[in-house]
Amino acid sequence: MKMSERIGRFQASPIRRLAPYAIAAEKNGTHVYHLNIGQPDIRSPEESIVAIRAWNKPLVAYGESQGKEELRNAFSEYYKGIGADVEPSEIVITTGGSEALMFAFMVLCDPGDEIIISEPYYTNVHTFAGIAEVNLVPVTSVIENNFALPPLSEMEKKITPKTRAILLNSPNNPTGYVYSDEELKTLLDMCKRHDIFLICDEVYREYCFDGASYTSVLTFKGYEDRVVVVDSCSKRFSMCGIRVGALVSHNEAFITETMKLAQARLCPPIIGQEAAIAGFKTPPEYVASVREEYQKRRDCIVECLNAIPGVKTSRPKGAFYLVAELPVDDCDRFALFLLKDFTYKGSTVMIAPAAGFYENEIIGKKQCRIAYVLNCDDLKAAVECLKAGLEAYNKQ
Amino acid sequence: MKMSERIGRFQASPIRRLAPYAIAAEKNGTHVYHLNIGQPDIRSPEESIVAIRAWNKPLVAYGESQGKEELRNAFSEYYKGIGADVEPSEIVITTGGSEALMFAFMVLCDPGDEIIISEPYYTNVHTFAGIAEVNLVPVTSVIENNFALPPLSEMEKKITPKTRAILLNSPNNPTGYVYSDEELKTLLDMCKRHDIFLICDEVYREYCFDGASYTSVLTFKGYEDRVVVVDSCSKRFSMCGIRVGALVSHNEAFITETMKLAQARLCPPIIGQEAAIAGFKTPPEYVASVREEYQKRRDCIVECLNAIPGVKTSRPKGAFYLVAELPVDDCDRFALFLLKDFTYKGSTVMIAPAAGFYENEIIGKKQCRIAYVLNCDDLKAAVECLKAGLEAYNKQ
Repeated sequence: MKMSERIGRFQASPIRRLAPYAIAAEKNGTHVYHLNIGQPDIRSPEESIVAIRAWNKPLVAYGESQGKEELRNAFSEYYKGIGADVEPSEIVITTGGSEALMFAFMVLCDPGDEIIISEPYYTNVHTFAGIAEVNLVPVTSVIENNFALPPLSEMEKKITPKTRAILLNSPNNPTGYVYSDEELKTLLDMCKRHDIFLICDEVYREYCFDGASYTSVLTFKGYEDRVVVVDSCSKRFSMCGIRVGALVSHNEAFITETMKLAQARLCPPIIGQEAAIAGFKTPPEYVASVREEYQKRRDCIVECLNAIPGVKTSRPKGAFYLVAELPVDDCDRFALFLLKDFTYKGSTVMIAPAAGFYENEIIGKKQCRIAYVLNCDDLKAAVECLKAGLEAYNKQ
Repeated sequence: MKMSERIGRFQASPIRRLAPYAIAAEKNGTHVYHLNIGQPDIRSPEESIVAIRAWNKPLVAYGESQGKEELRNAFSEYYKGIGADVEPSEIVITTGGSEALMFAFMVLCDPGDEIIISEPYYTNVHTFAGIAEVNLVPVTSVIENNFALPPLSEMEKKITPKTRAILLNSPNNPTGYVYSDEELKTLLDMCKRHDIFLICDEVYREYCFDGASYTSVLTFKGYEDRVVVVDSCSKRFSMCGIRVGALVSHNEAFITETMKLAQARLCPPIIGQEAAIAGFKTPPEYVASVREEYQKRRDCIVECLNAIPGVKTSRPKGAFYLVAELPVDDCDRFALFLLKDFTYKGSTVMIAPAAGFYENEIIGKKQCRIAYVLNCDDLKAAVECLKAGLEAYNKQ
């Protein structure tokens, strides 16, 4: 029977291809250090856990398609706190940042339209673009330049009559790059010049290191109509499983169109929204302490990785990922080797091959993404294991 | 700035257009009987509420993209209990039945492909089809025939080389029709003959009246490869807000393709899945008592409506909706009148105009959908109010 060719064209993610081997290794008693996924080991805010346990209604009913008013108010106040004058009516609560990305693509683009994206990029964007029949047009940032935004001229060259938006993710998954105010301003001006949108995925907004901070594109004046922000509670509150995100824009028509999609899927998860509302009541010390912990881990993993001969890493300024270039022929094969044919002191490491983070997979062939979501002791042990793995792999 | 034309073509749902007037009426102190939405007032299973309150992990982490194994096991056992031999690996847990429908359309169809659907149909299907760029090809069922399946020959006439599936919803929203084993068998044979899929939305499976029952298409032998079932915990457990559904198929390739989409959006809501797992542990008396309650309400509302001169109703055999034809020129205008310009004993009624449930809106112009999700006393009061509303509207 015929099924969709479009889905047939989608690749299963490299992590998904590797997952069965990780499960098999764990079943065999091997400890697997998971550096492959952005699942923090950080506790959720206590307030959120209390809110879940305090559920006291006799039934879990549908809520507003736009999301609970109390949650939109909480987001709005939070945005005002970071200098962005966002009203609750300018926010659509989504089922995670994932749905926010998909909605943004659907609302801004018709099939065949183009979105320019700096690569390497969060691999699932590829699938969301596929669902919306949008063509991603990559502009490559390079490890040698710490994955800074490519020169503007390079981006501008990619703009065609089919370009609807530029998609940024800052702080960046997978590179950890944080775009500066100047870079954002220059980009926004370019969007204005060409009358296109800027979609900015800011879900790691809180996690910038070395005293730096990230300025939300929502705070820039004069670009209100062309800015769409993707947000999420997953990483801010270490609650990836509640599936609560948001799509934010001052552009009223954008919100109206988005609501047609939001209405069709009825509402975002209700109990997760209660946890998110409580999350916003957490004292700022929560996020500050999480940030500090990630910075410590970043310092730890960058140092350990750089001590391995032949390994090159970017130095992330934010989020909790980095891209490393390894002295191997093919990171996909190496990642498989680690799970299938290797142990060191009873352990092995799972990494995410970076090929899937590029439109042109060749570029990322020697690279992998490392999520430093383990504590420093585990990170050190994981990198020691990775080092032994590199030696064993290259001796084969 | 240019936005998507495809979304521009989507209509906001009639309920969404009416909602601000309902809110305004309520703000003015008018009591609004909500017959417009399938939000039951029935309690969720006590076990589910207890499970939510028992959350004891320090963080809400991502779960498996396919859904928690424990939940898939629970679904699998439940299916075995209704005679369908479904393995946990043949189930993908989704974010509500909504996501299940969208995934099914995306996986089975390429843009421009066709799905045949019996109308009137659940209005949001229209948007999901739009997202997947699928053309819905309606076959009209009529109130005079209690919305039975149109003659097979009429359906078969609509099959073209672009047809990928027939979409059935049984027990039906909005008509309450329950397809018989013979109807299902005939349809399955037709799908086999033309080598297409049958997608069956069975989320109201439990709610059949007068001692009748609905046989899941999952139980029919010899059609395993072409059957896809959409399921949900929303209605079975009166937990619409948890957003937990499922997509079920014996077709391995279908599950593999669906997993590419499931993987991209990471996982369905975690806490809702805990509530769902607990729901399956509820004794069968729960569903039996809810069914009994709905049957009582069905009897009550059909009797009350039929006592109004000029009102024609279908007699629902399942689910908790019915379609009524009203003695008005235009149900959309009448629904607006009820909310904007009418009260009776301090109350009014909100109904869902049925035009949006048809591809050709003219057919449903005098019809509305009524969800009998209120208790009998409220239903009687609501219909009394509706009757007064009809008189007032036609006297204008």
